[in-house]
Amino acid sequence: MSISDLDVQTQDTRAQPVMRLRDGQLQQAQDQIAQEVAVAFVFNGIAFAVMMASPSDLHDFAYGFAYSEGIIDHATQIYDCEAKQEAQGYTIDITIAGACFARLKDKKRQLAGRTGCGLCGVESLEQAIRQPAAIQSEIRFSAPAISSACTAMRTQQNLLDATGSSHAAAWCHADGRVAVIREDIGRHNALDKVIGACLRQGLNMPLGFVCVTSRASYEMVQKTANAGIPLLAAISGVTSLAIDIAQQAGLCLLGFTRGQDFSVYCHSQRLHFTTT
Amino acid sequence: MSISDLDVQTQDTRAQPVMRLRDGQLQQAQDQIAQEVAVAFVFNGIAFAVMMASPSDLHDFAYGFAYSEGIIDHATQIYDCEAKQEAQGYTIDITIAGACFARLKDKKRQLAGRTGCGLCGVESLEQAIRQPAAIQSEIRFSAPAISSACTAMRTQQNLLDATGSSHAAAWCHADGRVAVIREDIGRHNALDKVIGACLRQGLNMPLGFVCVTSRASYEMVQKTANAGIPLLAAISGVTSLAIDIAQQAGLCLLGFTRGQDFSVYCHSQRLHFTTT
Repeated sequence: MSISDLDVQTQDTRAQPVMRLRDGQLQQAQDQIAQEVAVAFVFNGIAFAVMMASPSDLHDFAYGFAYSEGIIDHATQIYDCEAKQEAQGYTIDITIAGACFARLKDKKRQLAGRTGCGLCGVESLEQAIRQPAAIQSEIRFSAPAISSACTAMRTQQNLLDATGSSHAAAWCHADGRVAVIREDIGRHNALDKVIGACLRQGLNMPLGFVCVTSRASYEMVQKTANAGIPLLAAISGVTSLAIDIAQQAGLCLLGFTRGQDFSVYCHSQRLHFTTT
Repeated sequence: MSISDLDVQTQDTRAQPVMRLRDGQLQQAQDQIAQEVAVAFVFNGIAFAVMMASPSDLHDFAYGFAYSEGIIDHATQIYDCEAKQEAQGYTIDITIAGACFARLKDKKRQLAGRTGCGLCGVESLEQAIRQPAAIQSEIRFSAPAISSACTAMRTQQNLLDATGSSHAAAWCHADGRVAVIREDIGRHNALDKVIGACLRQGLNMPLGFVCVTSRASYEMVQKTANAGIPLLAAISGVTSLAIDIAQQAGLCLLGFTRGQDFSVYCHSQRLHFTTT
């Protein structure tokens, strides 16, 4: 099994000439711009979906995407994963176990709609909302550990520092150490990349929590809960459906996580407020 | 033709009990939360797509969505539009002209992938990027008018003020007056709502410009250019593909539009820098 990401050289940014208006004066300058590319996922030779994404960590993306979409349950069900650059973007060829492929064919027309998504495979309201299974973990997280992780995440957002326009997601150990951080122009992609990296590295996701720089909407909660992760901390706000799904799944949902402060929308029993 | 939005009473926010951690102290409080709902678009009785969105301005959303997806070219091609609330969200029944419906059936499996979108109808790279037609307008916009519009837009973001977590888009007259502003939890939806409102109100979109509170990625440029609008000003940054598509379509793309300052990524000939 290939777990290297070195089969393609990708670059998340490009240099771009720009004209800046500053204090009424025009200046010629050069910006670093976040790359946006089309990424096609092909499972066992069958084209499945195309995502618009940052071209980094494509193997993590493939694993996380396959997992979040319910195509695989374990990293070992991916036998091979190869990314190649093409004229219009990247194709990721993923070889999955036969049982997973059978499932994929069932799912192909039963996919969930998303915020900001123009058109999905979903056509009816009944198909739109997927209810994740209840989270089993009894772990509790300390408020200072969460605040510390969110602060640390900000210092590792290299794509944001370069371009000013990308999201990040991180999976963190219960003590607040950031284990995996990934960036992408799309917040859902960043989270899928984190989940994929955890799968590939064998990290026990239910023992940690996730921080995201973005808002938490339905799908961010759905992906987190689906991975059995008991807590999601968003730097920005949360939506009504994010709270409802988190409530039902047993996920502790935090918003406006800034400095030492945050808001808790449900399942506060997963928190404690001491450093010990 | 119904152009009223009064067939359903929608509420963009809901009150939510919340526990706030502030300066180490826990407080019980109440937040206003942005509603996130599933919105199903049904054309001539055929279920087409489900979007996760804010439930306001559903008629504008339907018109803008149908237009951005190339299903209609004019508001008059929608004969009737009716939104109704259901257990899992909202269904919008849209009656379109026969020629449009024939087109829709062709499009059903040729839809574009998006940033942050989990899965779309698109399966291959060739289908992913749609190149809009070149913008014909010769109009030029003044830098102060653009800055003024972006500043004014911020003062009209009621959903953001209430919840801290929504995007806005606005179509503005060339002199900087904000004509239409719409908000949504999804930035693509906000832009579709603006385009739909312009269509329904008979505004001449190529004579004005669009401001968005978000980043400008491929699809934001695609929707703007598709409507013949010559300039898109984003408060946040832009992606590589946004620049490439804007360059090809003849759209002037601005980023980091803040106060009197902004960055110009292409087609600066559409700008002038005087107030006269």
